Amino acid sequence: MAKTPQGARLAGAKAPSYVRAVNEVEARSSGYTARYMLTSDVAYVLTAAEMNLTPAESAKALLEALLALIDELDSIDTQTPAGDIVAQREAWMRERVGAQHAAWLHLGRNRGESLRAYLPRLYFRHVLYEQRRTVAGMLRVLVEKAGPVLEAVAPNYHHLQHSGFGTLGEYLLSWVPVFLPHLERLEQVEQRLDYGPSVIGARKEVHALYDKVSARLGFSRRAWLRRDGIWVHSQFTEPFFALSLVAVDIARMAQDMRIWMTPEFGFFVPADEHSGGSSALPHAKVPFGFQAVIGGAILAANRLAGEMSAAAGGPSEGSEPIYHSGSLYEAAADIVARTRYMAEVIEHGRFDLEELKRKSTTDYAGSSEAHDRLVYDYGVPFRTGHRLLGAMARAHYLGEEQIDLKQALLEETGRDIDVDQDEIMDIVLGLRLWPTTFDFDRLKALWTEFGNEVAAAEKKLAQPGPVERTLEALLAEARAWLAEQGGA
Amino acid sequence: MAKTPQGARLAGAKAPSYVRAVNEVEARSSGYTARYMLTSDVAYVLTAAEMNLTPAESAKALLEALLALIDELDSIDTQTPAGDIVAQREAWMRERVGAQHAAWLHLGRNRGESLRAYLPRLYFRHVLYEQRRTVAGMLRVLVEKAGPVLEAVAPNYHHLQHSGFGTLGEYLLSWVPVFLPHLERLEQVEQRLDYGPSVIGARKEVHALYDKVSARLGFSRRAWLRRDGIWVHSQFTEPFFALSLVAVDIARMAQDMRIWMTPEFGFFVPADEHSGGSSALPHAKVPFGFQAVIGGAILAANRLAGEMSAAAGGPSEGSEPIYHSGSLYEAAADIVARTRYMAEVIEHGRFDLEELKRKSTTDYAGSSEAHDRLVYDYGVPFRTGHRLLGAMARAHYLGEEQIDLKQALLEETGRDIDVDQDEIMDIVLGLRLWPTTFDFDRLKALWTEFGNEVAAAEKKLAQPGPVERTLEALLAEARAWLAEQGGA
Amino acid sequence: MAKTPQGARLAGAKAPSYVRAVNEVEARSSGYTARYMLTSDVAYVLTAAEMNLTPAESAKALLEALLALIDELDSIDTQTPAGDIVAQREAWMRERVGAQHAAWLHLGRNRGESLRAYLPRLYFRHVLYEQRRTVAGMLRVLVEKAGPVLEAVAPNYHHLQHSGFGTLGEYLLSWVPVFLPHLERLEQVEQRLDYGPSVIGARKEVHALYDKVSARLGFSRRAWLRRDGIWVHSQFTEPFFALSLVAVDIARMAQDMRIWMTPEFGFFVPADEHSGGSSALPHAKVPFGFQAVIGGAILAANRLAGEMSAAAGGPSEGSEPIYHSGSLYEAAADIVARTRYMAEVIEHGRFDLEELKRKSTTDYAGSSEAHDRLVYDYGVPFRTGHRLLGAMARAHYLGEEQIDLKQALLEETGRDIDVDQDEIMDIVLGLRLWPTTFDFDRLKALWTEFGNEVAAAEKKLAQPGPVERTLEALLAEARAWLAEQGGA
Amino acid sequence: MAKTPQGARLAGAKAPSYVRAVNEVEARSSGYTARYMLTSDVAYVLTAAEMNLTPAESAKALLEALLALIDELDSIDTQTPAGDIVAQREAWMRERVGAQHAAWLHLGRNRGESLRAYLPRLYFRHVLYEQRRTVAGMLRVLVEKAGPVLEAVAPNYHHLQHSGFGTLGEYLLSWVPVFLPHLERLEQVEQRLDYGPSVIGARKEVHALYDKVSARLGFSRRAWLRRDGIWVHSQFTEPFFALSLVAVDIARMAQDMRIWMTPEFGFFVPADEHSGGSSALPHAKVPFGFQAVIGGAILAANRLAGEMSAAAGGPSEGSEPIYHSGSLYEAAADIVARTRYMAEVIEHGRFDLEELKRKSTTDYAGSSEAHDRLVYDYGVPFRTGHRLLGAMARAHYLGEEQIDLKQALLEETGRDIDVDQDEIMDIVLGLRLWPTTFDFDRLKALWTEFGNEVAAAEKKLAQPGPVERTLEALLAEARAWLAEQGGA
Repeated sequence: MAKTPQGARLAGAKAPSYVRAVNEVEARSSGYTARYMLTSDVAYVLTAAEMNLTPAESAKALLEALLALIDELDSIDTQTPAGDIVAQREAWMRERVGAQHAAWLHLGRNRGESLRAYLPRLYFRHVLYEQRRTVAGMLRVLVEKAGPVLEAVAPNYHHLQHSGFGTLGEYLLSWVPVFLPHLERLEQVEQRLDYGPSVIGARKEVHALYDKVSARLGFSRRAWLRRDGIWVHSQFTEPFFALSLVAVDIARMAQDMRIWMTPEFGFFVPADEHSGGSSALPHAKVPFGFQAVIGGAILAANRLAGEMSAAAGGPSEGSEPIYHSGSLYEAAADIVARTRYMAEVIEHGRFDLEELKRKSTTDYAGSSEAHDRLVYDYGVPFRTGHRLLGAMARAHYLGEEQIDLKQALLEETGRDIDVDQDEIMDIVLGLRLWPTTFDFDRLKALWTEFGNEVAAAEKKLAQPGPVERTLEALLAEARAWLAEQGGA
Repeated sequence: MAKTPQGARLAGAKAPSYVRAVNEVEARSSGYTARYMLTSDVAYVLTAAEMNLTPAESAKALLEALLALIDELDSIDTQTPAGDIVAQREAWMRERVGAQHAAWLHLGRNRGESLRAYLPRLYFRHVLYEQRRTVAGMLRVLVEKAGPVLEAVAPNYHHLQHSGFGTLGEYLLSWVPVFLPHLERLEQVEQRLDYGPSVIGARKEVHALYDKVSARLGFSRRAWLRRDGIWVHSQFTEPFFALSLVAVDIARMAQDMRIWMTPEFGFFVPADEHSGGSSALPHAKVPFGFQAVIGGAILAANRLAGEMSAAAGGPSEGSEPIYHSGSLYEAAADIVARTRYMAEVIEHGRFDLEELKRKSTTDYAGSSEAHDRLVYDYGVPFRTGHRLLGAMARAHYLGEEQIDLKQALLEETGRDIDVDQDEIMDIVLGLRLWPTTFDFDRLKALWTEFGNEVAAAEKKLAQPGPVERTLEALLAEARAWLAEQGGA
Repeated sequence: MAKTPQGARLAGAKAPSYVRAVNEVEARSSGYTARYMLTSDVAYVLTAAEMNLTPAESAKALLEALLALIDELDSIDTQTPAGDIVAQREAWMRERVGAQHAAWLHLGRNRGESLRAYLPRLYFRHVLYEQRRTVAGMLRVLVEKAGPVLEAVAPNYHHLQHSGFGTLGEYLLSWVPVFLPHLERLEQVEQRLDYGPSVIGARKEVHALYDKVSARLGFSRRAWLRRDGIWVHSQFTEPFFALSLVAVDIARMAQDMRIWMTPEFGFFVPADEHSGGSSALPHAKVPFGFQAVIGGAILAANRLAGEMSAAAGGPSEGSEPIYHSGSLYEAAADIVARTRYMAEVIEHGRFDLEELKRKSTTDYAGSSEAHDRLVYDYGVPFRTGHRLLGAMARAHYLGEEQIDLKQALLEETGRDIDVDQDEIMDIVLGLRLWPTTFDFDRLKALWTEFGNEVAAAEKKLAQPGPVERTLEALLAEARAWLAEQGGA
Repeated sequence: MAKTPQGARLAGAKAPSYVRAVNEVEARSSGYTARYMLTSDVAYVLTAAEMNLTPAESAKALLEALLALIDELDSIDTQTPAGDIVAQREAWMRERVGAQHAAWLHLGRNRGESLRAYLPRLYFRHVLYEQRRTVAGMLRVLVEKAGPVLEAVAPNYHHLQHSGFGTLGEYLLSWVPVFLPHLERLEQVEQRLDYGPSVIGARKEVHALYDKVSARLGFSRRAWLRRDGIWVHSQFTEPFFALSLVAVDIARMAQDMRIWMTPEFGFFVPADEHSGGSSALPHAKVPFGFQAVIGGAILAANRLAGEMSAAAGGPSEGSEPIYHSGSLYEAAADIVARTRYMAEVIEHGRFDLEELKRKSTTDYAGSSEAHDRLVYDYGVPFRTGHRLLGAMARAHYLGEEQIDLKQALLEETGRDIDVDQDEIMDIVLGLRLWPTTFDFDRLKALWTEFGNEVAAAEKKLAQPGPVERTLEALLAEARAWLAEQGGA
């Protein structure tokens, strides 16, 4: 009679090279998924006990240990033993309840279902909800900060060159239509993650088990087939894309503030608590945070491409990127942290209204306004007006002799147009603001409208997310069951 | 009096190095956007004429030339003159109607608004709609092809290793829940692109112009501020992500078929018309197409990351990636083409049912079924059953002496379990199928359900897309206006 | 007796979906490889004729047609027929010489060897050499431009904040050690591409054929085995990486110039011929080119990742990215064009020495110098000096009461240090330059040294590259052979 | 008199959002750089003491503490306090030696110089050297494993389809020309990293300090200017590219083995210690490691693109990606670990020679050989032979009537060619091997040659790397100096 080998079909321990190259990398996920793994264990063990699939005694021992583990989670070394969280938590539990009870822990499941189905779905539903709250917070900051400065004149830039006037309030409010769609997008993706694992095979008791567990984990439906239960990548790729898209937008905001905080621009000063110093330059206040936000967005975009490429390069059940999901989970959490940081930067930073106003007339910033005046008030053909104003700006810039606008218009259009060249030049130079330059009423109306939308969004997100609430309820159920059994 | 310089403020021609490095690259977009640019010109010119902003004579000349250009578009060299489509079509029009009329062409607009706002929105709304139709076609193929083979036994793979039984019908149907969410996702993104450009400044006539033009281009609302009108990246990044996600899924399907068509697997033969030959190997039928699908998906994921990174690395009004949008537009069109190709590959390829059945019992493919039997029918602890079946498979594989299952169960569980070791081994070897192995009724019900969903989707997408219909109506309006004016 | 099918084992034409999804994409490479393909045909046909493997009459017909095709290449539509260049040029030749002679064209080869071995090697060796010349040109511009401004004081930036003084000459020269290693790197990569295709099989005549052809194509050695002949990716990935690395550096330079050309900085004005205008802003001079350079570098980095990922995701003989190599070839050529553009931008742009000098004392730019004075001249502990100077800058910035430096030093170090607080503050404010601030002698010596290195590099690269010279010689050989045969 | 603020110009503590978003991310690098940071501190402190820039007493206290810290490094929490290693080790040291001595620690440096110059250079020179050794080990395994199986017939694949014969020895040896250039490439990159930091300013004592420190850290030259000292990205991008390129090659090898270990192919069995099991399938032996290798390579390629893109998107002194360099360092170490794993997989895995031989004649694998026979032995035009053999294969595959080869040749060439159709068909079917099929002598010669090259490489790399040796010597110097001072 042959001896029973360790670890089923495979004999012996893993090679150190395997542990280092594979298992250590897998364990990097565990800090993000351990809580969900253990809570899902509670759901499975509790349900299996209720259905008499697991002996009550074992279920009791397992549940007591699981609840204790969840309480102690912050102090547990999630890198040990090296391996994925499925193997790790089985080792942790074996140590606590012994091999005999632990043998019942994994009933009804397979590893892929945990690592590829409900763990990423629970994790990302949680993160997406947190990110919605963070985005809502950013929106509130933008609206609040814009209120008092709706009419504070500011330069407008395009290609980092001056392109007409705006106001600081308009600038801040203009971020609202950037962040509002993120709320919708994040929610749509969250809803697409709302389904529990599928069952392989036709055993009725297993289907019943999954139905119950799935509901206990907060899923409102289950996957149809094993493929959409496990062999999809969209539970990784799509939520991470939605997060990365926010990362890109806060990076653009950080890039603006980085430029605005140069002494040359001088429009913005971040709070000390959000700035870095320099070991070489005692005087310096430096935008480490903004650079981290920008770099982080670029790395996130590339992490996404890596996830998608690894999914694309494998067979349809391929799991090439799974072993590295720790870095994906980490990057997702980092994006939320950076979004929160940027919201605070805007909230606590100081905008220099004087400097914004002073520079708003730099560099012929009124040329577009002057162009409109020629076209709409004097009927000058669009391209003709454009060219003549360009010539006036050029002559002024080079200190050369100015063109004769009326004469040039006559030559170009054949019409004698009674335009005041000095007035036009004043507009070009930003010395005269026109009532047509800026629509303050519209801006104020938008401010009110945005304020209402943001308030509604914040109200909707006031509660903890569905994942948190469901898991809390589940732990309460488990405690109640144990109390009924005369346990813990 | 100074001479009027060419090209407004800038004097002289562009350097050849600029033309090559910037303008030639810009012109690569024009093949994708020229039709939309010219049609938008029709909308602007027609509306401006109606509002008396443009003289009727010029409007008439412009509209006649625009309609002619649109008709001739397939034969126009969109690479000449090098530059973006805004500059190109102004050159094309100047040549046709003369400088005086052409000077009115661009009234009411700026270049960014074209290149970054309505052109990408029109283009991607069009492509997203086409892709929805293509995905619906793929779904129909899957359901139709699955119907006759719902019960055709096939191996199931995980990590490219055998992992139990399935059927070919299940395999094909399992793609349905992969592609169905694409329909929803593509539509949600399309809706987020449904808004026209914003106005800079407060001129009432310009607002009225934009309202009308925006509606004529099929947008149901307009951007609030210049930022969401122009300075967002999501009109590029989000639709391209939604397309890329489909690209990833067809790549995984192609990867499956590439492996399945090896003589070693022998499960699939693509049609000759979808296969490549070899210049070295006269006999060969090679999966060039599948490799192009896989490589294309990976390149698309990276093109997306480039778009996002370039957006993240610039200021909030940054347009770093715009100059290269030709390669983005091209990649989007390619994804639709590859999706169509893969749908046809499945439709016309031949699956070898005999070979699928023959290999379905390879490599202890019933071990999971046997495990379930031990756990659910004999109450063996999950992990214990797993380990003992692993030992049995190992002993069988190595030709070593078999373990004594009953004795091992007694030792491990302390219970005398009356299990038939031969029966269990037969299940492991796939020699006995159990009623619990596969849920045919469920599969048939799913097939019906999926069929209904797909039929509904196809019906919804039967018409040409909203962009096509709107632009067609616009051209008709222009023709009617011209007829009224006694033109064309 | 069955009829001979068209196209060997495969019957019938390709499906339109295949032509669009695969063949059209393949044909995008041909603009970059057609010349090399045809020239390699000359090498093969000529050599095979000399070895009597191909009948002289066919060889003569083929060579005449090939030489004519090469002459007409600029006017040939390389997109037609859709397909790779191997298939295309066979179609072109069949049309010119008839099927009977054309049947000899591909003797001794396989498609992979062309598409994956010598074509990319010839193309990239050519591009790498061109890029070396372009980089050498950039270096010359930098040295020449730096000469007159070695002592022109300029601010130095870190994190876009002021960090001490430099000179414009130092800034320009500091790019030299960035670009010099590119010359070395590009050359090393070029050398690694210097090997011709390998032979499959053991036929002596084929080995002899390959030896001769390989030499005629300018390769100094041949691949050992079919893998390194064909199944490597490094002929694509490595040269493209080397080019992309230059792309990154010119992007950083463009980013500097984009910021420097804002009116707020005001340090740089690019020439009109290297700048863009604005359709909305008649006055504007905008850095389209710089943005294209930045965006292009990011897209290149991602194109590289796509190439590497596609290579990594396939089997070791995998060719997933090959079908899309057109976009890789294009991106490589674009990088050279952008490098040339940036060299010209620096050469013809104007630096504003006054403005650079004026802003060099902004924002406590001398704090590091003052720190050195405390540490090295007064023995103040490093961190103590840093903290006290920070406090002085802060008090000055906030307009608060200044610290007593001597008192603070006494408290912190226990030593009575005889330091002049006003002098220190003047240094901090940049009001006094010290001989220790800047090492002009060293800079001048570096300028001379760099000048010599650049001159040596330019001399080395004065000739056309080895690929061009070899192919020119080959065409001459072919013409001579034809003349000998009494042809052409 | 104002109070001295903490932390120089910045007052107060960092916000929790900053600590989480920036400092915690920075600290992820420290596990990789702490040893180099502390050792560089030894070099600076020791040298500054010798030059009397730092008081001997402080230097002694610092060196003793540094040596102790280096010894204890494995047990230090490198995540605390959150921040970069420059700030962290200053905190660690302050705790050990008090603020007064610690104030001397950072003399002569700036943070950028550490984080962006010598730390990445030391780290990557170390990793590149380790990777050279690992690659040399892989090469040795390949040559050793190939020796006994040089003549063991095996199928050859292209596009995963059969494409003629090879041998297992040829397959294994064909990896040698893939890995050999990595040795050269890694070494060239290592050499480009061999330069120490530059000095800002003109103080002679600082230059002397840097010269000495640079030599002590094993650099054979110093940067010319502050840019190449700090503001380059190539110390990150280029070494990581060189490593990633190896990652791609081992991924392709892993992909081969993953396919070869399917039961359908059946060519390779990895050792148990290098394989994974399945929680659902007791029998399964699964290629987790191979998938991790493949996914890891793709993620590495994208991490590289992120690094390059972040470098390209910033100003020339930009440091956007620096804050995230922990993930770059980690990815580099992981590549070495995966390379080591794959070398062991090949070394300890088992190739099934029987199965390789059996499948080598599958699917008309001799068609190319038959083609050569027609072309070279019978003078049949290349394309004609190709088409007729394709027809023969097709007819055979479809079970249709065979063509008459002689008749077809007569029709096509006009020549009566005396070819034996049965013999040709036998060759196509792989039933007859020809002496021209495979060049065993050449293969044996290559095996010997490769063996010699690999032995030479291993000998060259037998010693620990230059970084390790230099740092060891430095610590010895420090201990000697302390002993001289009567310390420790």
